[in-house]
Amino acid sequence: MAIITLTTDFGEKDHFAGATKGAIYSELPDVKIVDISHSVSPFNIPEAAYIIQNGYSSFPKGTIHIIGIDAEIHAENKHIALKLDDHYFICANNGIMSMICSEIAPEKIVEINIHEKIQTSFPVLDVFVKVACHIARGGTLDVIGKNITEIKPIKNMVPFVNEDKTQIIGNVIYIDNYGNVVTNIKRSFFETIQKGRAFEISARNYTFKRIREKYSDIVNFDIPEHKRHDEGRKLVVFNSGNFLEIAVYKSNSNTVGSASTLLGLGIMDAVSIKFIPNPVVPKSIDIPANVHKISDFE
Amino acid sequence: MAIITLTTDFGEKDHFAGATKGAIYSELPDVKIVDISHSVSPFNIPEAAYIIQNGYSSFPKGTIHIIGIDAEIHAENKHIALKLDDHYFICANNGIMSMICSEIAPEKIVEINIHEKIQTSFPVLDVFVKVACHIARGGTLDVIGKNITEIKPIKNMVPFVNEDKTQIIGNVIYIDNYGNVVTNIKRSFFETIQKGRAFEISARNYTFKRIREKYSDIVNFDIPEHKRHDEGRKLVVFNSGNFLEIAVYKSNSNTVGSASTLLGLGIMDAVSIKFIPNPVVPKSIDIPANVHKISDFE
Amino acid sequence: MAIITLTTDFGEKDHFAGATKGAIYSELPDVKIVDISHSVSPFNIPEAAYIIQNGYSSFPKGTIHIIGIDAEIHAENKHIALKLDDHYFICANNGIMSMICSEIAPEKIVEINIHEKIQTSFPVLDVFVKVACHIARGGTLDVIGKNITEIKPIKNMVPFVNEDKTQIIGNVIYIDNYGNVVTNIKRSFFETIQKGRAFEISARNYTFKRIREKYSDIVNFDIPEHKRHDEGRKLVVFNSGNFLEIAVYKSNSNTVGSASTLLGLGIMDAVSIKFIPNPVVPKSIDIPANVHKISDFE
Repeated sequence: MAIITLTTDFGEKDHFAGATKGAIYSELPDVKIVDISHSVSPFNIPEAAYIIQNGYSSFPKGTIHIIGIDAEIHAENKHIALKLDDHYFICANNGIMSMICSEIAPEKIVEINIHEKIQTSFPVLDVFVKVACHIARGGTLDVIGKNITEIKPIKNMVPFVNEDKTQIIGNVIYIDNYGNVVTNIKRSFFETIQKGRAFEISARNYTFKRIREKYSDIVNFDIPEHKRHDEGRKLVVFNSGNFLEIAVYKSNSNTVGSASTLLGLGIMDAVSIKFIPNPVVPKSIDIPANVHKISDFE
Repeated sequence: MAIITLTTDFGEKDHFAGATKGAIYSELPDVKIVDISHSVSPFNIPEAAYIIQNGYSSFPKGTIHIIGIDAEIHAENKHIALKLDDHYFICANNGIMSMICSEIAPEKIVEINIHEKIQTSFPVLDVFVKVACHIARGGTLDVIGKNITEIKPIKNMVPFVNEDKTQIIGNVIYIDNYGNVVTNIKRSFFETIQKGRAFEISARNYTFKRIREKYSDIVNFDIPEHKRHDEGRKLVVFNSGNFLEIAVYKSNSNTVGSASTLLGLGIMDAVSIKFIPNPVVPKSIDIPANVHKISDFE
Repeated sequence: MAIITLTTDFGEKDHFAGATKGAIYSELPDVKIVDISHSVSPFNIPEAAYIIQNGYSSFPKGTIHIIGIDAEIHAENKHIALKLDDHYFICANNGIMSMICSEIAPEKIVEINIHEKIQTSFPVLDVFVKVACHIARGGTLDVIGKNITEIKPIKNMVPFVNEDKTQIIGNVIYIDNYGNVVTNIKRSFFETIQKGRAFEISARNYTFKRIREKYSDIVNFDIPEHKRHDEGRKLVVFNSGNFLEIAVYKSNSNTVGSASTLLGLGIMDAVSIKFIPNPVVPKSIDIPANVHKISDFE
């Protein structure tokens, strides 16, 4: 039987998520329902886009993903359903799918047109559930919508590269549960521009010269455990979704602090990567006086 | 197989909700368990009453709802089970069910009397789970309790209407995940008193003269999108549960603000509706000097 | 079909918990997945240990528990799987299991050694899920790991008893959703030391002379309800997990306050129990001047 996932900004307290599940089970008693998140910040499209992009692909092919963010229908906010990477997505046409679609072309997009008979102030429950159950029963997208070819984009989600390709300027797009700061710079994009050159990553007053493979790579295991002070140290990794992330080792906002709090980084703040020419003659690197110098080990 | 829902104040962190599910699956491996909410404010009966009233009816007939709020049994807090609207509810007799019961008469209420053999400091797990599984297996309420005819009421949950029916005074009963402010004034009640008259809704220093059908009705789509400033605008709607709600368009407490924060409205605060006689001769409306005048469009 | 539970510090917002479930269903479509908690404080081993110890035993024998806290593998943080009390546990060898293992000896412990082929920055999803599904299909621990006999301990989790057994000094190990303060003093341990003697429990400036059987034991039901002021009163109970707990009746941090906020008690703070010799001749009890005297009823 199909799986239907839920990604919404309903929060953990209100009845909305529970009611949506009740409506699904009323139509399809044997379906599996899985929460991806109900704690997307209210109306936060980029956050939802990041969560669904990183969450969907662990599910089996054929999974149906309901995304309930800013779902009230009006002239400029139609409902859509997509088939992409053998998964189905149901959401408003408000930019949520543009992050995934920039990497994987959708097989099919339809604008949902089953609204005529539905008077609703709760479109996730009244419209998205109906569409999801239709797909779960093996129904086609053509029955519930008309083909469209374009979806609404999100602005500012692609990092900037200067003309001579010596610098990438990206943005913070997500701050995770550990306070780690996720940028829109993906590993593949970074490596295409880097071409093996050394680099310097700057965010606020901090610079980093290495990208770690995992968080604990910052620990020097040759030092006895009781003499180490690694918790709370800042580092850069490619995270499990392959996004460049500024992190803190064993981060916890209430104790050692987090990358977001320690560096003062919030959503949309800039993170810059300068590439250093492969030196024939070694060159000194200018670091502004107000920039903390971080050892090569950092 | 039956569905059992959970509505509690256990929170998201403690093991209580997980342990309750473990106990249910230990008795009934094939049942479906659905969380409605575990984030009811501790011991907050009206909040739980609102959530269960709005959450239960999307579930199929026969669903069993466990409500775990203030469930410790003592002389004045007995355990009850109800059949109502073809759903089952198991909770303490502390007022939680009085909001639903004021609209739909229960078919049957029993005071649970299976406690003799149960020594417990976790009644939801030790008593409510047992009762829920009994019902899920097709057992009757008579086996686990004795008939009663009345349940404990919640105070102050019904709006007040003055004698000549020119004014309703309601109260804030719930603040949702978006910070929207829900009152105890239901659409049917409002319309019965209104009888087509114009009206003015007052809360703190704000007045509203319209009730919207949906949130985006406040947007003037004739204005180009980049010139609009609708996010954060205040409005009144009947929400998806048909309660009068003071809302903010695309509300978010961290960005544009929410109705609760912007208007300074909290639980039990008053919201008043004055009805204006259908004029033979048009009359001026008195607005106190300290009340913000809001255009008809607002 | 098996049940797999999840206890993590992933939080409620990120995609991690949802993605983990997707990975499990991809391998085993018919398994049941139950969340115990995703809101363990980041990297908080003692908190996770408390939650899993109190959560696991309500589940049926054979349940598989994935604990995703501080799970990144490195030289000092191996992955382990245990069989204990007919349940299976999969986690990092970082102390999480030491609290359960101090009470119940594990039948078998293995260090997981399936990592050779797995390059991962998300070990819960890539390693723990694989192990859990292997066990759920009836696989043995020997196939996925090599036997070990010891696991890493957590420090400071056992209460101190003085030499002449007149005093126990315990610590706060958990603060629950109600703000109640849980110590590491278990009922069985307390009773073994107490041997029927009277006692005085001290925490900060407060003392208590009674341990209640349930929270509402503090209420005097002979006083009419409207004249009582019991909400917010402090008391000591053995909680549903049999840990000594300093609690507040109908506790709510936002209204009447909680034990944690009212007494100013945080994690690792000391709680002392002094035993009073069974008097042949009655003796006076010294109470320091700065200690609030609390009536015997309290």
